[in-house]
Amino acid sequence: MSISKVSRRLTEALAPEVNDIIFKPRLAGFDETFVPLGDINKAHVVMLAEQGLIRPEHASALARGILAMEEQGPGAVPLDPSREDAYFNYEAHLMSLVGADIGGRLHTGRSRNDILATLDRLRGRAMLIELIDVLLRVRTTALEQAERHAGVVMPGYTHLQPAQPMTYGFYLAGVAQALERDSRRLMDTLSHMNVSPLGAAAFAGTPFAIDRQRTAGLLGFDTYIDNALDAVGSRDFLLEGIADLSLLAVLWSRVAQDYFVWTTHEFGLIEFPDSVATTSSIMPQKKNPVVLEYLKGRTGQIVAALMAGSMAIKGTHFTHTGDANREGTLGFWDAARETLRCLTLLELVLRTARPVAARAGRLAAEDFSTATALADHMVRAHDLSFRAAHHLVGAVVRDAMDRGVPADRIDADMVEAAAREQLGAPLGIDAQAVRACLDPTRNVAARASAGSPSPDTLRAHVREAQGRLDGAHAFVDDWRTRLADARRELQDTTRALAGQP
Amino acid sequence: MSISKVSRRLTEALAPEVNDIIFKPRLAGFDETFVPLGDINKAHVVMLAEQGLIRPEHASALARGILAMEEQGPGAVPLDPSREDAYFNYEAHLMSLVGADIGGRLHTGRSRNDILATLDRLRGRAMLIELIDVLLRVRTTALEQAERHAGVVMPGYTHLQPAQPMTYGFYLAGVAQALERDSRRLMDTLSHMNVSPLGAAAFAGTPFAIDRQRTAGLLGFDTYIDNALDAVGSRDFLLEGIADLSLLAVLWSRVAQDYFVWTTHEFGLIEFPDSVATTSSIMPQKKNPVVLEYLKGRTGQIVAALMAGSMAIKGTHFTHTGDANREGTLGFWDAARETLRCLTLLELVLRTARPVAARAGRLAAEDFSTATALADHMVRAHDLSFRAAHHLVGAVVRDAMDRGVPADRIDADMVEAAAREQLGAPLGIDAQAVRACLDPTRNVAARASAGSPSPDTLRAHVREAQGRLDGAHAFVDDWRTRLADARRELQDTTRALAGQP
Amino acid sequence: MSISKVSRRLTEALAPEVNDIIFKPRLAGFDETFVPLGDINKAHVVMLAEQGLIRPEHASALARGILAMEEQGPGAVPLDPSREDAYFNYEAHLMSLVGADIGGRLHTGRSRNDILATLDRLRGRAMLIELIDVLLRVRTTALEQAERHAGVVMPGYTHLQPAQPMTYGFYLAGVAQALERDSRRLMDTLSHMNVSPLGAAAFAGTPFAIDRQRTAGLLGFDTYIDNALDAVGSRDFLLEGIADLSLLAVLWSRVAQDYFVWTTHEFGLIEFPDSVATTSSIMPQKKNPVVLEYLKGRTGQIVAALMAGSMAIKGTHFTHTGDANREGTLGFWDAARETLRCLTLLELVLRTARPVAARAGRLAAEDFSTATALADHMVRAHDLSFRAAHHLVGAVVRDAMDRGVPADRIDADMVEAAAREQLGAPLGIDAQAVRACLDPTRNVAARASAGSPSPDTLRAHVREAQGRLDGAHAFVDDWRTRLADARRELQDTTRALAGQP
Amino acid sequence: MSISKVSRRLTEALAPEVNDIIFKPRLAGFDETFVPLGDINKAHVVMLAEQGLIRPEHASALARGILAMEEQGPGAVPLDPSREDAYFNYEAHLMSLVGADIGGRLHTGRSRNDILATLDRLRGRAMLIELIDVLLRVRTTALEQAERHAGVVMPGYTHLQPAQPMTYGFYLAGVAQALERDSRRLMDTLSHMNVSPLGAAAFAGTPFAIDRQRTAGLLGFDTYIDNALDAVGSRDFLLEGIADLSLLAVLWSRVAQDYFVWTTHEFGLIEFPDSVATTSSIMPQKKNPVVLEYLKGRTGQIVAALMAGSMAIKGTHFTHTGDANREGTLGFWDAARETLRCLTLLELVLRTARPVAARAGRLAAEDFSTATALADHMVRAHDLSFRAAHHLVGAVVRDAMDRGVPADRIDADMVEAAAREQLGAPLGIDAQAVRACLDPTRNVAARASAGSPSPDTLRAHVREAQGRLDGAHAFVDDWRTRLADARRELQDTTRALAGQP
Repeated sequence: MSISKVSRRLTEALAPEVNDIIFKPRLAGFDETFVPLGDINKAHVVMLAEQGLIRPEHASALARGILAMEEQGPGAVPLDPSREDAYFNYEAHLMSLVGADIGGRLHTGRSRNDILATLDRLRGRAMLIELIDVLLRVRTTALEQAERHAGVVMPGYTHLQPAQPMTYGFYLAGVAQALERDSRRLMDTLSHMNVSPLGAAAFAGTPFAIDRQRTAGLLGFDTYIDNALDAVGSRDFLLEGIADLSLLAVLWSRVAQDYFVWTTHEFGLIEFPDSVATTSSIMPQKKNPVVLEYLKGRTGQIVAALMAGSMAIKGTHFTHTGDANREGTLGFWDAARETLRCLTLLELVLRTARPVAARAGRLAAEDFSTATALADHMVRAHDLSFRAAHHLVGAVVRDAMDRGVPADRIDADMVEAAAREQLGAPLGIDAQAVRACLDPTRNVAARASAGSPSPDTLRAHVREAQGRLDGAHAFVDDWRTRLADARRELQDTTRALAGQP
Repeated sequence: MSISKVSRRLTEALAPEVNDIIFKPRLAGFDETFVPLGDINKAHVVMLAEQGLIRPEHASALARGILAMEEQGPGAVPLDPSREDAYFNYEAHLMSLVGADIGGRLHTGRSRNDILATLDRLRGRAMLIELIDVLLRVRTTALEQAERHAGVVMPGYTHLQPAQPMTYGFYLAGVAQALERDSRRLMDTLSHMNVSPLGAAAFAGTPFAIDRQRTAGLLGFDTYIDNALDAVGSRDFLLEGIADLSLLAVLWSRVAQDYFVWTTHEFGLIEFPDSVATTSSIMPQKKNPVVLEYLKGRTGQIVAALMAGSMAIKGTHFTHTGDANREGTLGFWDAARETLRCLTLLELVLRTARPVAARAGRLAAEDFSTATALADHMVRAHDLSFRAAHHLVGAVVRDAMDRGVPADRIDADMVEAAAREQLGAPLGIDAQAVRACLDPTRNVAARASAGSPSPDTLRAHVREAQGRLDGAHAFVDDWRTRLADARRELQDTTRALAGQP
Repeated sequence: MSISKVSRRLTEALAPEVNDIIFKPRLAGFDETFVPLGDINKAHVVMLAEQGLIRPEHASALARGILAMEEQGPGAVPLDPSREDAYFNYEAHLMSLVGADIGGRLHTGRSRNDILATLDRLRGRAMLIELIDVLLRVRTTALEQAERHAGVVMPGYTHLQPAQPMTYGFYLAGVAQALERDSRRLMDTLSHMNVSPLGAAAFAGTPFAIDRQRTAGLLGFDTYIDNALDAVGSRDFLLEGIADLSLLAVLWSRVAQDYFVWTTHEFGLIEFPDSVATTSSIMPQKKNPVVLEYLKGRTGQIVAALMAGSMAIKGTHFTHTGDANREGTLGFWDAARETLRCLTLLELVLRTARPVAARAGRLAAEDFSTATALADHMVRAHDLSFRAAHHLVGAVVRDAMDRGVPADRIDADMVEAAAREQLGAPLGIDAQAVRACLDPTRNVAARASAGSPSPDTLRAHVREAQGRLDGAHAFVDDWRTRLADARRELQDTTRALAGQP
Repeated sequence: MSISKVSRRLTEALAPEVNDIIFKPRLAGFDETFVPLGDINKAHVVMLAEQGLIRPEHASALARGILAMEEQGPGAVPLDPSREDAYFNYEAHLMSLVGADIGGRLHTGRSRNDILATLDRLRGRAMLIELIDVLLRVRTTALEQAERHAGVVMPGYTHLQPAQPMTYGFYLAGVAQALERDSRRLMDTLSHMNVSPLGAAAFAGTPFAIDRQRTAGLLGFDTYIDNALDAVGSRDFLLEGIADLSLLAVLWSRVAQDYFVWTTHEFGLIEFPDSVATTSSIMPQKKNPVVLEYLKGRTGQIVAALMAGSMAIKGTHFTHTGDANREGTLGFWDAARETLRCLTLLELVLRTARPVAARAGRLAAEDFSTATALADHMVRAHDLSFRAAHHLVGAVVRDAMDRGVPADRIDADMVEAAAREQLGAPLGIDAQAVRACLDPTRNVAARASAGSPSPDTLRAHVREAQGRLDGAHAFVDDWRTRLADARRELQDTTRALAGQP
């Protein structure tokens, strides 16, 4: 429902609290809203003219006015908060340019409600494309580094306890694979978002013979949303967007946590240049992981934005209301901007982190995480059941620990001694095989199952994943081209209508 | 990393607090886990045999053992919490059936970590299919009722203020359209979920020449997840599932709120039978909306499950840990079960709500929400700008209100008087047209734009939407058929391996 | 741990992403931080001098430098984000004024960590006092209006169904009583907050013989926090503050919801002036409740701030870290500022809402909510059990409804007819008594139990509650006086030290 | 408003979905509710009799019936979900014992609404006392261990980077100090909770001359809550309780995270016995920190319970509704029970964690975290400014690192060399002093400021904190005694009324 103070006979002035707290902040984003609002007006006036719903000379004058405003830019529009929002300020300025009678014809067959819904989708669409693009950069860096460090052996952890050797490249490829799903989700949301509510009017359509498909097309939408009440009453596409970002934020918090621990004095697996982690003049070895703490800490804000939005919209009526459609959607924009910042930092982290290969290899050799391979070898070469092999290796390791022997110094004799004790007979195990199992590099290389960290397997995986990056780039390029084409057509059609070819 | 107490030489007993608080509750769902765990074991032993990784006679004995356990059911398995979880209890019982040596060979080339990840996907998949199916029933009812009540005129609200007349059917069709997007999201998540982590082992693959594609196929998965670390370390598919349910819950809270207000004494637009809303013996007109309050109230739990999961997983390491993979995923199951309950109630609400057509029509006639149509008419028939028409109608309405004239008694004379005052001249407006605008039924019928509540437009929309229901039914049927086929093949292959054709 | 780039020999420049995303925004609040930071520095230098930890002439020069900076204001400090935060920028400018040697002595026996913790408490303390004060205004208005409208009878609802008549004043007094608990919580948090972490240094104290009690006193703190690790590592006072605000926000969302429904066309119980609820020119009766929607919608942001903070701090180490102490606390300031805005609007709502007494009384008379009184009368006057009376009245009401008789037209004959049917005999009920029960005004007046809406009871309650307002005003005044006194002493002592009495 | 099906003339049966999903689960906690419900009934009937609101013989019969039910226990009450809740099932059984006429007199002057509110407070009160008691055990253990390990030097971290040496005891004392604030908050909430809503009736009082102070006293409440609408419409005490638990949960997640990292292979600062952390048979050194992961992971559930409750209550009307008063409060009970479990585990962790003193001391000696003391020494002994000393020590450390000299091997010559380079002249530093600074034990001992880790300071702090434990024990004992006394009086008075002294 459109609202105006103009014709009200005797009316009190708006309370200053309402003006200051509610209406003034709504105009803070006027500059950002100005262009998409102009596009909506162009598409609407073109359609009105084509459908014969306004006279050609009125349509032409409106088109000229809109183009003139576009040329002057948002700064030329005097903003009055008591007009409530961006649209009425836009309309008031347009009326001052083309006259009240003609300017007053633009709002035929529509309402602020469908305009607001359309604005949210146009702006949300642009934001998602930017997010997908920046995320693509993160994925690219992750895979580049994965390839570079495909051979850097390091301890692999479960429960933060050394479990089996892996490579740093393998870790990064895993992260890249997870990020790819986040990309997928954002792409899906983008396509859900790209449908037009314009023409739903206040929520209940209009008696004017408008062409919703036409305005949808002029604005680069795939089609229009049918039921008008849902069209103006639902903003689930924004909550869905925050949900995508929340999942992504939880992921980056985990990656940041890995680096946070790996870059400690005690782990010493990863180093950052001084350009990323600030150091202390008194303890130059100290690297305060300010970027990692930022990444971990801001996760809360992204997820909380989903909470804020869900809570605001919960229990509102299924129609247009301020809490559902304004307050409930604020979080998307904040979360999206924060995500852009965090992805920028995440890319920086992935790009600048340097594995300390020597330390990583030594830890992997000594921390007994190679032991599983010895059990696997006994299964294959000596026909033990996995459980029996598992127990036998446990005895070997415990013996080594008791005697202070590091993992890579365990030899065949120690194995045979344990076998005699546990199984009553030696295995006849090959001394070379024992050494191969306990050498972390050969240990990793032997794991050739699909998706495993063996450098050859990994490199093939990375190449495949990089191939999918090309697809993602094409996706982004395609969207940008389609939207640019649609906008060009919108501009050309409006100019033609304005008699300004 | 698999863990066992068996070979530990001198070990303290597990603290009873740990046993009671952590391990005992893990076995509470053993019955539910038992079947998918058996399936995983079948698929794994079939693959091991086919790949020559265990000897045929061992494979056959394992297959017989697994089938025997399946026949006996979960009740036959003695449960010991100190074995930590379902898998080790299953394995221990299997060993008691087929012997420790043979039983100990089943765990070749895998780990509890990939088993747990696979279980979550198998069980999550089944849950999502059920959710989609129940949601389909809600959508079906919404559309049935939308069709039935396509002509029931009622006030349409924005900000809970009367705005324009609509129909009850139009409202329901809007809800159905929104629910369709929730269906879509669940379907997408289902396809994201249907990939196999089996064979990722602890997180770093295995030197055994396993065939991950084969086990994936036997378990009805589309394919396997490549990078093994991501395969066991990520449960984003469960958070994604809760996010879908959160959006759905926010929607149903809005629908419940509409009914909550519409069924008040003061609105009186909707009645529920006594079977749904409890009444008071002292005030028989009172309908305590217990179901609606339940629906609104439980929304918080669904959304909070997402917060709980996100918070638990936030800051965990990107690998297998208990907080990320166990604690962080509990919310999905709770949220899904609660959603099933709430959807059942929502369907009941939509099915049993009865619009009070007479009251609804009278309100729509009197509450001035028909006035926009009068302005629209002036634009079309008298070439006023929309703004000018808007102001003129405002003056008419205010005059009517001042004189206590209800909206449907406004006549052409009142319009002309206002026109003279506002525009300096009468419009020559048609008295019939004025009546048509102000009659809510004709008012609604005139709104023929795409997606509007005009009954003809609406009925066409509903038929189209019902067509899409058929597609959704086919989707569910297709999934169920595919999974049943896969399971039959798994069963047949296992039986063949067991020599029990 | 303090960090500085100055002495680093060969260091890479800070990555621009880190500078722009992390450090630059930290300086955005420099103006706000400048005064409390100066106070901390004054208190520290006074104490250092008194303890003989720096020489008098150095202390005097430092005091002069700090006072000079205070006089020049924050605008005179050149801000360099690469110095990381406000403190180092302050220190750098001080060094430029008093020389590096003297300026470098200020940081003796402390660290940035305890400074940051102290800043949070000084600023949080001021914010809480402001919140308590503004909330006091809301409570005052609620009680004023409660008194004014103590006799305005309206329907009382449970489950939004008419239940028993109450008065509008009674409703407001209930809200005021709930707000008083919110005040109480904020006051408690204020006292929890008012202890000094200064002197905890980095987290582990200092070998210098500092006097923590002295700096605490100079800064208006009640005392100092003992364990130094907890002193710099904990910000639970800020989470506690957000929790207080969350509870308050949930309350105001309920009040806003009441008005939102009561101000509908259908309820018609409350009217707002045009200065608060915007109306539509086309439907002047429409009052778009923009303020109420804002209040309801923003609740989500306050509660979500608690989620954001809890999630950021969850899983951080129990010590000083950026995620726990910076990222995790951002929400407090946002939530507090938003709460100030919302309380301002809530006070406006309470002040300007006008009950529509005639409509309210008529609804209360007709909606059968008076019926309980009739049952109560039967219990007292006719020795029926409450259950029996309850059932009998139910029969009367149902009969009235069936015959279209409004509640206030039920007479003794109808009651006796039902009594004969239900109990086999008439009650001999007094006709006057029946009328008294069914008249909502007398009905309300008869409810004289403690805390009930009878106007006399209510007025006494309001007077008592207003008495407690005086106590709350004294609380705020006392705090402001104490802090002003402490600051005056701090200023005087610093001036004396500077030789500027 | 009480509700009953009994007198409804022609009514449909309750829909089975409503019965199964809503009413059946409400009776799940009947056993728990039975005793407090009986107490409420006793207090009410005693007061009714004393006020002369029911006849002595009726009161006596009711008292006998209630006592008989108490004797028989909850199992004797046949439960029918269609009666909606515990109260109506209780009342129905009581009527079967004492007859409908007498049984029907119990509900005089009250309602289910005030009964439900009273139940929540009685049960919440008991739960809080238990929580405070268990938390007291955790604090006791923390302080015991703090005392035991007051001299165990270990690295102190900020940002998880070594910063300054501290002791393990100091860490524990810091945790204990933080837990004390959590205790304080729970105690405050307990006192907020202990006021009686009984007698508020449905929300609007009653015409019966009830004595609310008397029932409050009989139930052990401090007093009654005045305004009746607030009394039945508000459950903020439960949200406040969850907020307390949320803050506590965030704290324990941090402590768990410290142990999680300290118990890694790489840090090696803490060991757990096998009874707490499960080990692997294949890697006996591996300690899977299942308890720590549980503690970290469950934090999310506690905080989410606050979100669930806030979201359910948000936007409900300020009165009795199912979503505000039932759905919105469920989280408290879940969060409280989970907290009891987690506190039990936290106590176990604190009790069984063993610092690895040798490793801890060696790390503290070598990780350069002693360097700050050297700077402090230069300030005190050589009149350097802190900044200058800070830079000088930075140069010394960097030089040592470049040459591979560990921190505890830095000697006076190295310092003097750096002084010559940085300051142009040697300091004349004392060699013994350098050694003292760089020895972590003496380094810690020198930090004597209030709240610092110096063992003497710490032990004094612990003794003081232990003194406060006595106060906390007295607090719990006092509450238990008071409530036991009140219950004894209630029992005696009821027996006297029943003629069963």
